[in-house]
Amino acid sequence: MDLHLDGAALTAQLVDTPSVSGEEGPLTDIIEAALRPLPHLAVHRDGNTIVARTMLGRPERVILAGHVDTVPLAGNLPSRLEGSRLYGCGTTDMKSGVAVQLRLAASLTTPRRDVSYVFYDCEEVAADRNGLLRLSRSRPELLAGDFAVLMEPSSAEIEAGCQGTLRAEITVPGQRAHTARSWMGRNAIHDAGAVLDVLRGYTPREPEVDGLRYHEGLNAVGIRGGVAGNVVPDECVVTVNYRFAPDRGSDQAAEVVRSLFPAWPVKVIDVTDGARPGLGEPAAAEFVAAVGGTPRAKLGWTDVARFAALGIPAVNYGPGISQVAHTPGEYVETGKIAECEDRLRAWLGAS
Amino acid sequence: MDLHLDGAALTAQLVDTPSVSGEEGPLTDIIEAALRPLPHLAVHRDGNTIVARTMLGRPERVILAGHVDTVPLAGNLPSRLEGSRLYGCGTTDMKSGVAVQLRLAASLTTPRRDVSYVFYDCEEVAADRNGLLRLSRSRPELLAGDFAVLMEPSSAEIEAGCQGTLRAEITVPGQRAHTARSWMGRNAIHDAGAVLDVLRGYTPREPEVDGLRYHEGLNAVGIRGGVAGNVVPDECVVTVNYRFAPDRGSDQAAEVVRSLFPAWPVKVIDVTDGARPGLGEPAAAEFVAAVGGTPRAKLGWTDVARFAALGIPAVNYGPGISQVAHTPGEYVETGKIAECEDRLRAWLGAS
Repeated sequence: MDLHLDGAALTAQLVDTPSVSGEEGPLTDIIEAALRPLPHLAVHRDGNTIVARTMLGRPERVILAGHVDTVPLAGNLPSRLEGSRLYGCGTTDMKSGVAVQLRLAASLTTPRRDVSYVFYDCEEVAADRNGLLRLSRSRPELLAGDFAVLMEPSSAEIEAGCQGTLRAEITVPGQRAHTARSWMGRNAIHDAGAVLDVLRGYTPREPEVDGLRYHEGLNAVGIRGGVAGNVVPDECVVTVNYRFAPDRGSDQAAEVVRSLFPAWPVKVIDVTDGARPGLGEPAAAEFVAAVGGTPRAKLGWTDVARFAALGIPAVNYGPGISQVAHTPGEYVETGKIAECEDRLRAWLGAS
Repeated sequence: MDLHLDGAALTAQLVDTPSVSGEEGPLTDIIEAALRPLPHLAVHRDGNTIVARTMLGRPERVILAGHVDTVPLAGNLPSRLEGSRLYGCGTTDMKSGVAVQLRLAASLTTPRRDVSYVFYDCEEVAADRNGLLRLSRSRPELLAGDFAVLMEPSSAEIEAGCQGTLRAEITVPGQRAHTARSWMGRNAIHDAGAVLDVLRGYTPREPEVDGLRYHEGLNAVGIRGGVAGNVVPDECVVTVNYRFAPDRGSDQAAEVVRSLFPAWPVKVIDVTDGARPGLGEPAAAEFVAAVGGTPRAKLGWTDVARFAALGIPAVNYGPGISQVAHTPGEYVETGKIAECEDRLRAWLGAS
């Protein structure tokens, strides 16, 4: 792989080496082979995750992190360029960001701040396989730093923090009966209508956190009930997903959901804290000043929360477009790749 | 098997020969062996269904029909007698009725009306395995008659006709979106709340048909929806079961359900007509007069509808108790077995 190709051409090369989650080996080998020879970088490999660091002894260290895996292919390879758009699986999420990382890693031999470039695996699958999570547990020293930029698709604008996410099951009980004499029982599915009433009547909070406007959400993501075609069902379970702004923590989020559904047992299935935007931190403020634009709140959950959990302020900033991520028609605007690289280069630039 | 045992003792013998649907062979063999030697009966066997008929050339022929299969065992064998109750799988549904049939078949050598005793298999499972349905198609002449009594549990009271049953799926559409930006989509589960509103607000009809009061019902018997824990779902399907009085036919029942849910596609999964009570027919009226009591409407669907489809008026009349059918604590009052037999004997009696 030639790291001197321009960002769009390098993205196309990365995209044309498929790396669906769990199958990142070949692409990781190529990245490792491209970085190992560079004398200004100390390269570590852990499974299919690579960390390449400058070791200039600068007083400040920043992290540029991107995942190398993609969602499954959808008949959208090889990549193809149409006008200003590069199409293909992973173009937006997030090999264009990885291309920016690689070009900066290769060319910034003496950045103003020490930089740790992190290329990790298995972001698109269950959290327990996530390469960044694994590394944060097994080799946290490799992730040490003062500020992190996660190259998630953000249309080359800063998206700060992220919302938390909670899933819970609400169980509505009933009493079985034969449907020919349904008044002998109590229909749990009918009664679940009251749970849906709460969801239909819910007004999401839109709080401002550290100067950014978040937008919460509460949605049924599953419903199940039914015993047999002639039986009044005695149970209906509604699974809800609460997306909560980062001024609330896990416990508070669980309390919010319980208080909305006081009439039924609420079982929290999983919950993950969000991350405050933290743009007041000096390293973050300098990044915002250098990159320009108006930071937005990140509504989806991303791995910035993992950095937040390590005490490292982090933002999402990448050339991809989140709206087309995970779609068969995924693409990236090539102009954004260059723009993103230029701004990061200006921020990190040679001393 | 000794057909001269009293009804309760014979029921216990039948119960202690397990015959869960599909495994009726051994019990059918025993019944066949008991009936074959009787010179006043012509015995036919078709699979695990037996028809034993008197052939006296009477101007009128009646049918006593009962199924020999049971629902799966529930740790409730062998049978046990406690006071006036005989407990065990099949005591109520409906080996006590089969015992009555067998005692009448053995002892009524010259009934006033010719009698066809039908013992059939697979009533408790999918309709396409039902022995009575099979016989009505392959050997309808064996089911010929002027009036039929189905020995279903009715506490030795006449339950006439039966309600029809229709199942339909109502599909509520939505539009997928990420739950972190749920306002970009439309939640099909939330919208299904409007379907549940209709069900919660439904007032069942209680029409009088041929002098008997029926009681309809409309119930959700299943609900499903959900794509993934972070996706606003684009479909929710509610399965409903409509129990309709026998003054309505299948087409009308389907129209009723469609008209209740005009905003969504309604797909009828299956529908079975009920049966009018038909107690005005001469044979039925004589039966009612002989047996006594006040006939009630049968709300559940039973095989009387199969006789109705053959043009034969039919009623449910048996010693079992429908409320305890299919429960682990199933039992029959032994007094009802004798009562049921006595009344049928008085009706059919020797000429």
